[in-house]
Amino acid sequence: MITSTSNARVKDLIQIQKKAKVRNERDVFVTEGPKMFRETPPERLLETFVSESFYRREQKLFDGGRPVTVLSDRVFESVSDTRTPQGVLCVVRQFHYQLEDLMAGQIPAVSGAPLLIALENLQDPGNLGTILRTAEGAGVTGILLGPGCVDIYNSKVIRSTMGSVYRMPFYYTEDLRRDLLMLQGKGVRWYAAHLEGSVPYDEIPYGGASGFLIGNESRGLTPETAALADQSVRIPMCGQVESLNASVAASVLMYEANRQRRNAKGK
Amino acid sequence: MITSTSNARVKDLIQIQKKAKVRNERDVFVTEGPKMFRETPPERLLETFVSESFYRREQKLFDGGRPVTVLSDRVFESVSDTRTPQGVLCVVRQFHYQLEDLMAGQIPAVSGAPLLIALENLQDPGNLGTILRTAEGAGVTGILLGPGCVDIYNSKVIRSTMGSVYRMPFYYTEDLRRDLLMLQGKGVRWYAAHLEGSVPYDEIPYGGASGFLIGNESRGLTPETAALADQSVRIPMCGQVESLNASVAASVLMYEANRQRRNAKGK
Repeated sequence: MITSTSNARVKDLIQIQKKAKVRNERDVFVTEGPKMFRETPPERLLETFVSESFYRREQKLFDGGRPVTVLSDRVFESVSDTRTPQGVLCVVRQFHYQLEDLMAGQIPAVSGAPLLIALENLQDPGNLGTILRTAEGAGVTGILLGPGCVDIYNSKVIRSTMGSVYRMPFYYTEDLRRDLLMLQGKGVRWYAAHLEGSVPYDEIPYGGASGFLIGNESRGLTPETAALADQSVRIPMCGQVESLNASVAASVLMYEANRQRRNAKGK
Repeated sequence: MITSTSNARVKDLIQIQKKAKVRNERDVFVTEGPKMFRETPPERLLETFVSESFYRREQKLFDGGRPVTVLSDRVFESVSDTRTPQGVLCVVRQFHYQLEDLMAGQIPAVSGAPLLIALENLQDPGNLGTILRTAEGAGVTGILLGPGCVDIYNSKVIRSTMGSVYRMPFYYTEDLRRDLLMLQGKGVRWYAAHLEGSVPYDEIPYGGASGFLIGNESRGLTPETAALADQSVRIPMCGQVESLNASVAASVLMYEANRQRRNAKGK
């Protein structure tokens, strides 16, 4: 059992938790909690760390010979990114999807047609994590992330995905507009979520290959990116609401596509 | 200008920011930022505090004689609840709606029929704020909060409402089930968002007086409360997603009601 925070492996783990550069150099990221531990694909799980009290309680989890490193509760608290640590933490190998993977998806969805989300300058970790989680639920096939988006391996993003990071294909592009055009060439119609969108979002049929463009939390999409869309759509709003939270707006759009596809299938 | 953090008014302000008990005793709450300042109903605005640099930049805002207290930037930072303070902070009188106000709403909505949200043990401040914001956008007439819900005047809730707290009627009840039944008696049909709901949420018509019951982030609704619903509904989910984020689930439901009401109106 490791009982000192100056232990080299502990120091290393903290670096991986905190620094994107270290994560990318090592090609790893960290996930926390029993749910994430259970859902980690075994071939990606590199190391498991547990707190002493978690190990006592859940020793049977490791009976099959899965290697585990036990940390004293105090040391575990120092490496955990959460206020109330859940006692188990995994070092996981990063994903390397290709752009084409976003069209196929890994999850059995409601229809065979691709359903994508493209994000531009999305900066809040909770929003990105929530979008991944809802995207899996709604049957999205992949997520394209432009420059300026928060790092998907940030611990707050990982936590709010609730496991969807393991299953939702994603791709960071250095040239968002080039890749939007490329996917457009493969048949994807892009719908820009825009406060001044000309058409209410629910008047568009999303049965074919479709994608939603979502912009920054306060500034929305850049005009250059919005201009590439096949159509700009708005979510009608009552009262004095100027905009919806970015992950809420994305969720309303994704579930409208999901609703249409389910209903078309049922008929 | 106040330049010391030991000034009595500054100490007082910090107490109001941090402690629900102090807020309730004084019947006030605090809002931050220029957007909240602009949208504060004048008759509720009790005091305005600004940082020195905000005052220099925006002095014209106070030309009409609106009283304002200037704090040195350092003192302002000590009272602000945000990491990057926006320089203006208001002390606002609390709202006191009645249960009946939830049926009427203050916002011109898409149809005359009440649309309610009832929350049970909703604990995350960001979720409550986001629900208020989306609720205003979707034309919800009022929000019923059961025991165990986070304090709506918590600074993180206020911030994520983006101003909707000023316009969305809400009521904290000590007896959620009694009040659900009471509103049911007045014609509201309650739909419980439930992972094992028998009917997909989009197969229900929400044109009449309707309300959605939303439970705790990890445990959902209590069985006793869910049992009072006229119908339990589920949001279909692909992949391995076990549940959606509470504010996302509420948003998908509210916007389905909004969609139906808009479309009925258009026809």
